[in-house]
This record gives sequence, C-alpha cells and structure tokens, in this order.
Amino acid sequence: MGQMRGKASLAFERPPVILSSGSVAGSKEGQGPLGPFFDRVETDDRMGEDSWELAESAMQRQAARIALKKAGLFPADVRYAFAGDLLGQLIATSFGNLDLAVPLFGLYGACSTMGEAMGLGAMTVAGGFGDRVLAMASSHFATAEKQFRFPLAYGNQRPLSATWTVTGCGAVVIGAGTEPAADRGNGCGVRLPSTCGLARIAGITTGRLVDVGARDSMNMGAAMAPAAFHTIEQNLEDFGVDESWYDRIVTGDLGEVGSRILLDLMREKGRDLSGIHMDCGVEIYDKEKQDTHAGGSGCGCSAVTLCAQILPRLQDGTWRRVLFVPTGALLSTVSFNEGQTIPSIAHGVVLEHID
Amino acid sequence: MGQMRGKASLAFERPPVILSSGSVAGSKEGQGPLGPFFDRVETDDRMGEDSWELAESAMQRQAARIALKKAGLFPADVRYAFAGDLLGQLIATSFGNLDLAVPLFGLYGACSTMGEAMGLGAMTVAGGFGDRVLAMASSHFATAEKQFRFPLAYGNQRPLSATWTVTGCGAVVIGAGTEPAADRGNGCGVRLPSTCGLARIAGITTGRLVDVGARDSMNMGAAMAPAAFHTIEQNLEDFGVDESWYDRIVTGDLGEVGSRILLDLMREKGRDLSGIHMDCGVEIYDKEKQDTHAGGSGCGCSAVTLCAQILPRLQDGTWRRVLFVPTGALLSTVSFNEGQTIPSIAHGVVLEHID
Repeated sequence: MGQMRGKASLAFERPPVILSSGSVAGSKEGQGPLGPFFDRVETDDRMGEDSWELAESAMQRQAARIALKKAGLFPADVRYAFAGDLLGQLIATSFGNLDLAVPLFGLYGACSTMGEAMGLGAMTVAGGFGDRVLAMASSHFATAEKQFRFPLAYGNQRPLSATWTVTGCGAVVIGAGTEPAADRGNGCGVRLPSTCGLARIAGITTGRLVDVGARDSMNMGAAMAPAAFHTIEQNLEDFGVDESWYDRIVTGDLGEVGSRILLDLMREKGRDLSGIHMDCGVEIYDKEKQDTHAGGSGCGCSAVTLCAQILPRLQDGTWRRVLFVPTGALLSTVSFNEGQTIPSIAHGVVLEHID
Repeated sequence: MGQMRGKASLAFERPPVILSSGSVAGSKEGQGPLGPFFDRVETDDRMGEDSWELAESAMQRQAARIALKKAGLFPADVRYAFAGDLLGQLIATSFGNLDLAVPLFGLYGACSTMGEAMGLGAMTVAGGFGDRVLAMASSHFATAEKQFRFPLAYGNQRPLSATWTVTGCGAVVIGAGTEPAADRGNGCGVRLPSTCGLARIAGITTGRLVDVGARDSMNMGAAMAPAAFHTIEQNLEDFGVDESWYDRIVTGDLGEVGSRILLDLMREKGRDLSGIHMDCGVEIYDKEKQDTHAGGSGCGCSAVTLCAQILPRLQDGTWRRVLFVPTGALLSTVSFNEGQTIPSIAHGVVLEHID
C-alpha cells in the first residue's frame, strides 16, 4: 500500500502517462486567447444537431475521437471511459459515448469532473486494471443556461460575479506509457515509449465536500474557492511539500472573484500563490473584449484548457510540475430553489513533465 | 496486468471483501417482503426534514453510518466514498455526504449506480489505493417523481409496465479483508480476518451503453433488459463460464416486464435463466398487496436488496456465487421531452461466499 500519501492523496509508483488529448471548443471560446490551440473550434454551437444537448453530446464524441486518433488508437483499444457533464442524469455523456461502445463509468463532480475522471483513470491504469483509458468532461453554454438559469431568449442580466459556461469538451487518453500501444502508427513507431506522452500523472488528491454556506448561484467562484483551498492544502500536506514545489497551481473555474478569494485564503495560511496560481476560467476568455464578467466555468472549462494550454507547456518543459485542480459547485435548481447552500468539491491531479 | 479478463471484466487476484452493510428503507419498502431485513425502516418518509431531497440525503448519511458502525469504523477510517443517486447534479449525494467528510467520487449510472460504486470501490481496494472504501446509492419515491414524472398531488395514472421508485439507501464498506481493521471492536476481535466479511468481490464486469431505441419512460424495464443481457453475456464470455457457474444472477430493477424480456433474450442465446435469475425490483414489493405494478426501481432498489437479502444469503452460504447486475435507464426529462431514446447501462459484480 505504498502509494497512499497522507489523508487523501496517492503517489503512483509507476505514474500513468497522458498519451494524447483532444479538445473541441465553441465559437466564443475559439475567439478567446486559447482559440488557436484547440484541436477543433465549432463555428456553429449547435453543430448541426437538433438540440443543444445533442450538440454537447457530439462534442464529447469528437473530443474522444480526436484524442484516440492522436494516440493512434481505436475505441476498442481503450478499456474504460470515465466521463461526465453538468446536465441532469448526465445526458451529454450518455448520448455522447454511445458510439464509442467502451465500458463507461459516468461521473458527476460538477465542474471538477475532469479532475475526478483523470484521478480514477490514473488509478485504473496504475492498478493494472486497464492499459489505456479515456477521461473526459464537457459543458455547453446553452445546455447549462437552460438547465440552471434562464431561457436564452430571456436575455437576463448577469452580475459581475457570474461566470460564462464554456462550450467545449476536453478528453485525454491515459496509459501505462511504457508498454506497447496499438501498432497502427502514433508518430513514435509501433511502440509508445513514455517520452511520447504529454505529461505524467504523478499523483492525485481527491477532494471532499466543503460547504461554507454560500447560496449565490451567480457567484460560484466564492462557493468553490474554499474547496480549492482545502484540496491544495491537503495536497501540500499529504506530499510534505510547499507551494514552490509546483511551477503552477491551476484551478478549474474560480474566475476572477473566486481566484481572489483563494489567494486571500492562502495568504492567511502564509502562502503566496500570486506568482504560481492560474485559473482556467480566467485564461479562457479575453476579459476586456468578451464580456464574460468573472470568467469561464463548466466542466469543459478546465478540460479544454488542460488540453490547449497546460499539457503543451508540460510537454515542452516550460512547466515541470503542475497541480491541476478542477473545482465544482454542487448545486441543482431543486436544491437552490429549496434555499439550500452550494457545497463544493475540488479534485487535484499532479502533472509532471516527462524528461 | 493479470487481473483483466476479456473485453470488460476484472478478476481480482486478491479479492476485496464486503466488510459490512447498512440499509435504510422507506415505509412502503418496510411493509414489503424484505421489511424485516432492513437495518432501519423509516415510518416518516420525510424523516423530519424540510424537503424530500433532504430526507434522501439523510438516508445516505444514515446508511453510511450504520455500515461503518457494523464494521467498527469511524468515517476517518474510510479512504474514499463512491456514491450516487438519481437526482439532477446528485444533490442527495452532495448533501448526504457532507458530514462524513471523506474524499468523494460522485457517480451517475442511473439505477446501476450501486454496481458502478462497488466496481470502482473494489478496484480501489484491490489496487492498494485504499484499505477501506464506502460504496452507496440511494433513491426516494418522492424526489424521483418530482424529478422525472408528475407532482405527487396530481395522482397520475400509471401503466402496468411502470415501476415504483424505491425509497431507500444501501451502503457497503469494502476492505482488503485480510488486514487489521480499526481496533474498536467489530465482533471479531481487533483484527478483521476475511472470514468476518459478508462476501468477497471476486470480479466485476463494467457495462457499456446500450440503446435499443426505447422511448417509453413508463416502461424502463424494456429499455434496461438489453443492457442487462449485454453485461451478463459479456461476463460469461470474459470469465469463460456459463450461467450455471452462478447460484443466482440478480438484476437491479428490471421489474416484471424487463425480467421477462431478459429471460426471452437469454433463451434466444440458448440459456435458461429461469431457475437462476432474480430481480431486486420484483423481490422488494408484494405484487398482490402493494399495487406497485411492474415492481420497484431506483438506485436504492438494488442497493437495499443487496444489503437485506443478497449479502446475508452469501454470508450464510445459501448462495456460493452471485452475479449482481444493477441496471440503469439513462434518461432525463430534457432528453425525454426532446424525443430522445433511453440508453441503458448495467454493471456486474461477482460476489462469492467466504469459506
């Protein structure tokens, strides 16, 4: 049991490797700073489908196919898919994964889902339960607005603390890295040495529910910041390191407001994250030009930023070690309308450059 | 990688053990044939809470506490919780697990969730990523009716193919079985030898999405039967056995209609499951007296039946080997109202008597 660290972390003795990634983003995300780095940008956010939900499903299907193709794999080469989205009963995942026909674990961690999927995927590979798995998460502005807020045509005003749900899906293929991959060509010959991966998953820190009594669904950054704080602190404690161990600590979708709260909470603990912290929700849109208020959110936010920005910098060695912490606000319209609080959760993934 | 079997199964080299179980059921379930065997039967399905959703959360909390107590454990002795429910954004799970303060993986597999949770929990323990984990799933008639169908007060007519959502939560503690448990007394002294467990998890077969084009949300048995068929066939193929290898093959909530379809599908493959098959949805209510039409359904259906009926018979050796196959219909009101089909999924768990 040498892989357990502290209360909530694992350090993998044989770290799984992210073999490839696939990102599909919507039109607004394509116009943002990360636009050139997505594998695919949709100009039609409906993607020719009959509904927004089917469009989100199509994004999952495409992101998975792109990630598989880049690794030179067919769906049958993947043992499991770990996938989720924000919608009630995970319909984007259910319809998006039908064609893949891969054994599926459906996950819900709100916008932390990519961290949850990568954590379970890495455990699966590290435990010898699968040579390769898919981990992915999606969100769509139009499906999320319909699910959680107001009809699009209503054009409601949004406070400055509100975030904009990212339209997109990010998928990664996680593998053991050092063993034979499919012999259909992957740019590295028939075998896939670990140096072909984008990054190593050195460990994970699994979040627990944190509820600070937040009730404002238009300020989810404030609800999620304490969960991010808890998971980051737990990670540092479990691994016996301080924040300088990481080149970047990247949260999922705290946005401007939540990021400030996280930095304040960290400062109270004597940690200065100002030069290290980055938030996918802040990165994905151009604050000045795109009118997205506090930034981006949604499962897709951290998932596509991982694929478009974080993994490339880990691969080229700009960053050597990153703590990736997708954050989720666990509310539904039912719990919100019943006056409940918004519990949150954040799942950490330790990503390392492969030398 | 010696634990992988066939396309979608694992046979654990060191099978994890179900150390204990906890079941909390509603009043109607308490009046049914399994009533005397639940750990707790609620006479007030609101459980003194302000909403049905909070009542379902309370059931998760209680079931977990009962299972932990029976194993002589505190929440801190558990490494992870794997939990889910039927509600949008898993609110019963989010609010039900707050107090536990255990790292949480939120899962959605509709009514197959208990199989998904046990599968991932067993992988976690078998992989050495945790000494003990919790796996649980809940449903509640009133929260599910509100979420998926009509207001309770509307008193709509239900066709005979419809099932009745079970009010209840089942939880199990899964451990390595052969190593020291908490020294707070568990009826077996300070150490918990494997013989103290209720059953062994010998293997799992993870389901993939199956969509036969079913669209009738009042006949979910018909939608789910093909998924159950697929997972059972995959299990038999992956393990190289036939149906007689099992004393019982127990599906989750196919009900009367779905069970008949499953037996027909099996018969077409030359398999006679009539003496072996059992369905939790058929077992849980008294068809003659309780007016539940095709039987019970919901995540809680298979979870509480596992705790109240299946595990005791495995423990006392009445059954030596059981394939437990919770079944899930992956629909939401959004996908249903948009005219979509109902994809389904079923996750298999191979349970064995501990000699």
